[in-house]
Amino acid sequence: MQAFLSNLLPVWLRNYRPEWLRGDIAAGITVGIMLIPQGMAYAMLAGLPPIHGLYAATLPLIAYAILGTSRQLAVGPVAMDSLLTAASLGAITVVGADNYIALAALLALMVGVVQLAAGVMRLGFLVDLLSRPIISGFTSAAAIIIGASQLKHLLGIETARSSYVHDIVWSVAQNFSRINLPTLLIGLGGMAVIIGVKKLSKVIPGPLVAVVAGILVVMGLGLTDQGVKIVGTIPGGFPPLSVPSFGWSDVSQLWSAALTIALVGFMESIAVAKAVRNRHRDYDLDANRELLALGAANLAAGTAAGYPVTGGFSRTAVNDQAGAKTPLAGIISALLIGLTLLFLTPLFYYLPQAILASLIMVAVFKLIDFGEAKKLWHLDRADFWLLTITFLGTLFLGIQLGIGLGVALSLGVHVYRSMRPHLAVLGRIPGTDNFRNIDRFGEEVREIPGVLIVRFDGALYFGNLTYFQQQIKAIIKSRRDDVSVLILKAEGIHRIDSTALYDLGIFLQDLARDGIQVRFAGFIGPARDALHRSGLREKIGDQNFYLDVAAALAADQQAPQALQTNASFVAH
Amino acid sequence: MQAFLSNLLPVWLRNYRPEWLRGDIAAGITVGIMLIPQGMAYAMLAGLPPIHGLYAATLPLIAYAILGTSRQLAVGPVAMDSLLTAASLGAITVVGADNYIALAALLALMVGVVQLAAGVMRLGFLVDLLSRPIISGFTSAAAIIIGASQLKHLLGIETARSSYVHDIVWSVAQNFSRINLPTLLIGLGGMAVIIGVKKLSKVIPGPLVAVVAGILVVMGLGLTDQGVKIVGTIPGGFPPLSVPSFGWSDVSQLWSAALTIALVGFMESIAVAKAVRNRHRDYDLDANRELLALGAANLAAGTAAGYPVTGGFSRTAVNDQAGAKTPLAGIISALLIGLTLLFLTPLFYYLPQAILASLIMVAVFKLIDFGEAKKLWHLDRADFWLLTITFLGTLFLGIQLGIGLGVALSLGVHVYRSMRPHLAVLGRIPGTDNFRNIDRFGEEVREIPGVLIVRFDGALYFGNLTYFQQQIKAIIKSRRDDVSVLILKAEGIHRIDSTALYDLGIFLQDLARDGIQVRFAGFIGPARDALHRSGLREKIGDQNFYLDVAAALAADQQAPQALQTNASFVAH
Repeated sequence: MQAFLSNLLPVWLRNYRPEWLRGDIAAGITVGIMLIPQGMAYAMLAGLPPIHGLYAATLPLIAYAILGTSRQLAVGPVAMDSLLTAASLGAITVVGADNYIALAALLALMVGVVQLAAGVMRLGFLVDLLSRPIISGFTSAAAIIIGASQLKHLLGIETARSSYVHDIVWSVAQNFSRINLPTLLIGLGGMAVIIGVKKLSKVIPGPLVAVVAGILVVMGLGLTDQGVKIVGTIPGGFPPLSVPSFGWSDVSQLWSAALTIALVGFMESIAVAKAVRNRHRDYDLDANRELLALGAANLAAGTAAGYPVTGGFSRTAVNDQAGAKTPLAGIISALLIGLTLLFLTPLFYYLPQAILASLIMVAVFKLIDFGEAKKLWHLDRADFWLLTITFLGTLFLGIQLGIGLGVALSLGVHVYRSMRPHLAVLGRIPGTDNFRNIDRFGEEVREIPGVLIVRFDGALYFGNLTYFQQQIKAIIKSRRDDVSVLILKAEGIHRIDSTALYDLGIFLQDLARDGIQVRFAGFIGPARDALHRSGLREKIGDQNFYLDVAAALAADQQAPQALQTNASFVAH
Repeated sequence: MQAFLSNLLPVWLRNYRPEWLRGDIAAGITVGIMLIPQGMAYAMLAGLPPIHGLYAATLPLIAYAILGTSRQLAVGPVAMDSLLTAASLGAITVVGADNYIALAALLALMVGVVQLAAGVMRLGFLVDLLSRPIISGFTSAAAIIIGASQLKHLLGIETARSSYVHDIVWSVAQNFSRINLPTLLIGLGGMAVIIGVKKLSKVIPGPLVAVVAGILVVMGLGLTDQGVKIVGTIPGGFPPLSVPSFGWSDVSQLWSAALTIALVGFMESIAVAKAVRNRHRDYDLDANRELLALGAANLAAGTAAGYPVTGGFSRTAVNDQAGAKTPLAGIISALLIGLTLLFLTPLFYYLPQAILASLIMVAVFKLIDFGEAKKLWHLDRADFWLLTITFLGTLFLGIQLGIGLGVALSLGVHVYRSMRPHLAVLGRIPGTDNFRNIDRFGEEVREIPGVLIVRFDGALYFGNLTYFQQQIKAIIKSRRDDVSVLILKAEGIHRIDSTALYDLGIFLQDLARDGIQVRFAGFIGPARDALHRSGLREKIGDQNFYLDVAAALAADQQAPQALQTNASFVAH
């Protein structure tokens, strides 16, 4: 019985070592203190009252701690999910509307269901479709949009709600004359405090200092009379636990947003989890388990009047630096937020919104990364353009369209490349049985008159067989048809699909009619099986398959020898 | 000046040989005679008055003859484009409406613009995205839909207009009691005549015999009084040449249909052009020139009150069999249709619609091909399912969605496979420098203790690097970490993108920390360049690159030798 119960416990808890406790407690408290202002700030970014950011920082952390495979990941409200929540809810309702809070919770439930389903279907590999240039371009653009969206709180003006950066900038420009100077000074002061404290000390939490200073300044100078906006009354007590009421029309309007947030949230979380795991290397991450854990966290967020959560960059880094060894740190953070909800909410009455805005801006500025673009300009021009298009698309076409465009383009480029694969003409390195690309090795290799040796790497499939034929025909033509033997070094052809088999059959007939003998060198198992099943191997004849290029070449001089080698090869 | 003018002429005309003339004239007349009933029948399928099918069989043929690269392709109205036209126009207007004819012509113009633009942008390769299973499943389903859509003409009943096969069948079932017996008998008789004549003679055009017989029967027996529907008055004279009047809302409603028809039409045309070209092999097809020529043909169809055209299966086969040597045959067919328009239209007054329906049904029955599915079941199970899903999707979800689903799925499967690429563990064939897959060659190869030799084929890119790492780590783990040297046979890695370079760098650090020395054998040019630009080559160190696996293995025994080989290798 005890063994059974113990199996229900998470792995890290079953094997918990006392020496981990100190780091877990220190990290849990540090992250919890960070979470108080961050939770409120990100809720504001999502268009929600600040309290819902704290709600989202309770149960979800415990859910992740039980199911997750990362030992340092800090789950909770993050900037990107908050922005996506605001953008998707803004499309179907308005901030402050009766149903806004319920829809945010519904969105979290839907994200949870999507992530759980994806985890059960083992779709964790889908995150591999997001290449680094796409993630980088998207993250930089999203950071700029988030920063821009906070300008109104920093300047104390009203602006149009939008997630298009040009709309936001235009709206700020129009209202520039109405800037509230005290608000701006508090905001700039807040940023200065956060950055300054970070430079001075690694222990003191800058955001908390800024929050305390902001409250004291507003109270002390009575700045609410000067038009400085404050957080106001925050209801105390635990979050109400309930499934939000919703109609199916809400679900149908939110499903594409839920898919996007589920994917983007998972992307951010797995990226940071991988980075921190690579520093430790004492446990394994499992992408599908991570999906399940984040799904459970989002279900918890939805039932606790929260909104979509995920593993975030900054708090995870702090968690790791503060010494977290297991997800117990996350549970301690959640308990600290619970205590805050019970006893401390009245303290934040005078907290200026500009301080929360300054906190968000400092956090997202770090995510803007033009260095990656510069590096790619030299390393891989195509990837540079993919980054740039994703960046501009996210800024000006919107967040969902931007990342969708990036993924579609990067897959398009990948498919296009696989339709135009690398084909090399080989020559022999004199005195050896090594054959190398004549374009690369030039003088060092020798071609054999009348013999064309070609190496093709990758699958032959419907998308590239036309090109494959065109390339070989063009090479034969360029040699004024002085080719009587074509040797295909086929080791790299790991698959031939049915379309390619059909076209290959016709192509071989064409070559035969042109009087060109085709020999295959080193065909590997899967491709050989496909040739056999299609009947093409029989048509080609076993005598035209050789173990390697040298054997295929030797066939002219020593026919019996070659056949013998071949026979042993075909036996498999 | 003469040389300049001569350069404007198509290649086939400049090099025209007198001995070709006989075949061209015979084929041109044969196809022209076929085109008269087919043009009218397909127009009816498209929801247009029969005359517009003849209009579409004039100028477009001449436009293709001037620009096309196929010498036997017969362009004009075809079943598939007609069905697609009916389906797309049916979504925004109704058959018989004032704007139906103008919209059909507008659609042809738009298809022409899309194909011209695609030709200029050299997008002909896009047709390679349509694999054989997709084309086969789509064609069979479209043939069934076309056949079903003709049931109402064959049975003489009214049915709902739809391009979903279940709607059509349901509607026919509901109206089954209202069958017009004389109409059904004429239709069945027409099918019997067409099939019978074809079996008896290769020279006599069955469809024409059925048309003449149908007219005579209806006139002689006065069957119009029995409810047999006839073609009725067909206006004589050439088509009116004009650009149809249209609004931008029409264009925006038709653009997705225009894209589909442009692609599907090009697919059908290039497939049949390739097939007939492979029989002759005395000229080259150029996919991009074909796009331009089909685009010009569709522009001509649009200005001549026609509707979208393309190269069709049946008439091209007849054209070839009748001896066509150049596109002059097509020009002769067009002239014959012109004469028909001028003088012969009154003859078709009594032509029963059931005869046209029987003609379409016989033509499309040949396109239903379940043999391909059966073949794929044994040859390639994944391709079998792609065919089946495309077939069912086209039948029940609609034509555009069906082919879209097929293309998306086949690309999805391709991308998924490239994310799960083939990785082989190699052993040495004793006494040689050949290394082969231990799973395939079993007893014949020997592994070296402590050394893991892995071959990877294909590009390393964002989508597969996670899997690549997982596989190698799993193999190392399965050997209880008894691996001190990992040799990567990298000849087949023809590209490494920036994401893969980054992840590879971390992976190599991981391996180094585990005490595993990594050696690269036979890295080819493009991949080596990428390693160099990213700085990874420097981190790996030139001494760890080898010409081949044998050299990488020998490094332990004869270090100086290996370095020397390597030095000459790095020089490039």
